[in-house]
This record gives sequence, C-alpha cells and structure tokens, in this order.
Amino acid sequence: MARVSQQHLDARRRQILDGATRCFARNGFHATSMQDVLREVDLSAGAVYRYFSSKEELIGAIVAEVLESVREAFAEATRQTPPDPPDVLIGEVLGRVLSGEFVRGRAAGVDVPRLLIQVWAETLRNETLAALLRTGYETVRVAWIGVVESYQAAGLMRDDVPAEHVARTMIATVQGFAAQRALFGDAPVEILQDGLRGLMSMDGQKPG
Amino acid sequence: MARVSQQHLDARRRQILDGATRCFARNGFHATSMQDVLREVDLSAGAVYRYFSSKEELIGAIVAEVLESVREAFAEATRQTPPDPPDVLIGEVLGRVLSGEFVRGRAAGVDVPRLLIQVWAETLRNETLAALLRTGYETVRVAWIGVVESYQAAGLMRDDVPAEHVARTMIATVQGFAAQRALFGDAPVEILQDGLRGLMSMDGQKPG
Repeated sequence: MARVSQQHLDARRRQILDGATRCFARNGFHATSMQDVLREVDLSAGAVYRYFSSKEELIGAIVAEVLESVREAFAEATRQTPPDPPDVLIGEVLGRVLSGEFVRGRAAGVDVPRLLIQVWAETLRNETLAALLRTGYETVRVAWIGVVESYQAAGLMRDDVPAEHVARTMIATVQGFAAQRALFGDAPVEILQDGLRGLMSMDGQKPG
Repeated sequence: MARVSQQHLDARRRQILDGATRCFARNGFHATSMQDVLREVDLSAGAVYRYFSSKEELIGAIVAEVLESVREAFAEATRQTPPDPPDVLIGEVLGRVLSGEFVRGRAAGVDVPRLLIQVWAETLRNETLAALLRTGYETVRVAWIGVVESYQAAGLMRDDVPAEHVARTMIATVQGFAAQRALFGDAPVEILQDGLRGLMSMDGQKPG
C-alpha cells in the first residue's frame, strides 16, 4: 500500500466532515443516510468508512465541532477589558456564531442555526455529546459571569442581581435568536441589538 | 360493532396522545417507534391505528398541540392593559410554557423544554408543521409588538428602536431560556427575570 501523507489524510477527513455537515444541515441527522453522505462527498463507502466507522461516529464528530465553534465564539467576546456593553458584545457573538467560522471556506452555504437546532436535539439522546455540551457551556457561563461582574463593578449595572443570572440571560438571547433564525428565516443581528438597547433603556430598579 | 360514544373516542385519542408525548419527550421523535407508543399506552396496534394511521400523523398532532399551547402562553400575557414590565411579563409566559398547561393533569411529568427542542427540529424537515409554526409565531409577534408600543407610548422605553425588534428580543429570551432548561437541566424562572432586571438597569441610550 502506498504511503499516504498526514496532510492528505487530514484533507480527506475534512472533505467528509464538510459534505456530511451540508447534508445534516439540510435534512437533519436522522433523515440523512450514509448513502446521502457518500453521494455528497463523491467518495466510495470504503474511503469514508476508513475515517468514520458509522453515521453515529460522524454525527459525534460534527456535533463536537459545532459546539466547539460556538464555545469559541462566546469566549472570544469576553477577552476585552473593559467589556463592551451587552448590545455590542452579544452582536459580536451572534455574528460569529451565525457566520459559521468553523465552516468558513469549507462547508460554505451551511445554515448554521438549522444545524444548531439539530445539534441540540441530538445532545438530548446522546450522553457523550450532552457531557461535551455541558463542559463547553460551563466555560462560557464562567467567562460571561466575569463580564457581568465588570459591568457591576463599574457601576453600569445594578449589583443586587446575581451576575450568573444576567450572564445566563445574555446567553439565552443568543440561543433564542439563533432558534428564530432557524425556525423563521434569515434576519440581521441588528434586530437583537436594537431589542437589547430597548430593554436597557427601561427602568430596571426594584419598585418602591 | 357496539356503538361507541364520542366522549369515549375523545378520551381514547387523548390517552394515545399523552402516552406518545411522554415517549417523544424522553427519546425524541425518531428514536421512538410505534411499538414503544403501544407499550406506553398499553393498547393494541389496532386500537391505536384507528386514531393515527402512522407515526408521522401522531407526531404532527403532538407538534400542533405543543405549538398551540406555546402560542397561547405568549398570547395570554399580552391581554393586560397596561402591560406589566418585561421581567414580569416574560416570567409569566415562561412559567406558563414550562408548566406545560397543555399536559396538565394528563401527560404529567413531561419535560416540556425537551419536547420543545424536538418540536423545533421536527419543523425543520416538515413543511406542514413549519407553516403551522410560522402562523403561530406571527400572531405572537404582532401581539408583542403591541406590548412594546405600549411601553414606548408611556415613555417607559426609548421609542427610536423598532418595536418589532424589541418584541423579537423578548421572545428570544423565552426561547433561549427554554433551550437552556432542555440542555442543562432544571432552573427557576427567576434567573431570567433577574437577568432582565440587570439588563434593564443599564444605560440603553445611544452614545453621544
């Protein structure tokens, strides 16, 4: 058998993952067969099974990749000191998540929000993937608590609400808006940014 | 064949839907077989197929029911005049969605957020269900725009951001928090309410 370079192996693996990602984003994990994937990547069954022994293994690899890219998009935004206000920060994260940086120049044209809903549904029935999701979320949660504590320390936000609760709420706006994009179609990030500005302009003090 | 009352037919249909809802919330639509449903409701195949000719038909009926209950939970909250502030309003909607009023006293113990993620994923691959979702969302969107316009008219919120954008953002917080409950486990509604209060206490005016 001819020696095959690591570079070639990596490129082939990438090609399979990208093709499968496109299939899954279109039709979901369950309605997509390995035959569909083979057709999409234009490779033989033998070539594909050398890298992924089953559809489950392929799904696992893709879910891990999507979760990692979302985690990274959230983490990136918290590296500024002092942090930008929520409307700016959340706009950046959402933009980065939706652009699908992890597929840029590779599986172009993938509808990331659709893929995300599929990924969520998949984690519900797969304990390994669920554990991966929880670990990634934990990192994000801790970093965003730090951001909220910065707002509170700077006197920009009332400090009698737990920073963790605000962090979870900020994360929820990104998750919810991504769900809206998947369910109701394309919409600019500015919608969510305007919405946050509207909420931030209200009186958030305790009555009395 | 003995005459069967409409009441009996309805109760039997309800029994099947409730059992299937429990199965689907646990394992998802695709990993659940009709055999699983038959076992859960303790009925013969003949008895079940009399009401639902396929798993697809059963899924369709359940998705429609879940979407209608969520739509109703959102609509209910917008019937007050003047509307409560966002943290109160959103707390009410979320509480109503999570309680699964549509299953109250029937399919008790159903994890509504888990079911909701399954429902979202299902609408992505089923145009009939997607249309149902879009119609329900449209009603909710219009009602919530009305709420935001009330805030703006009363001078409680800056009026130079489109009411629709704030409405979508408020809806997104509910969707995102429901997703968090499904993905990361049970958490009280007060988390989201605190988070909204934190955001509302910030300065949401345009810089300069």
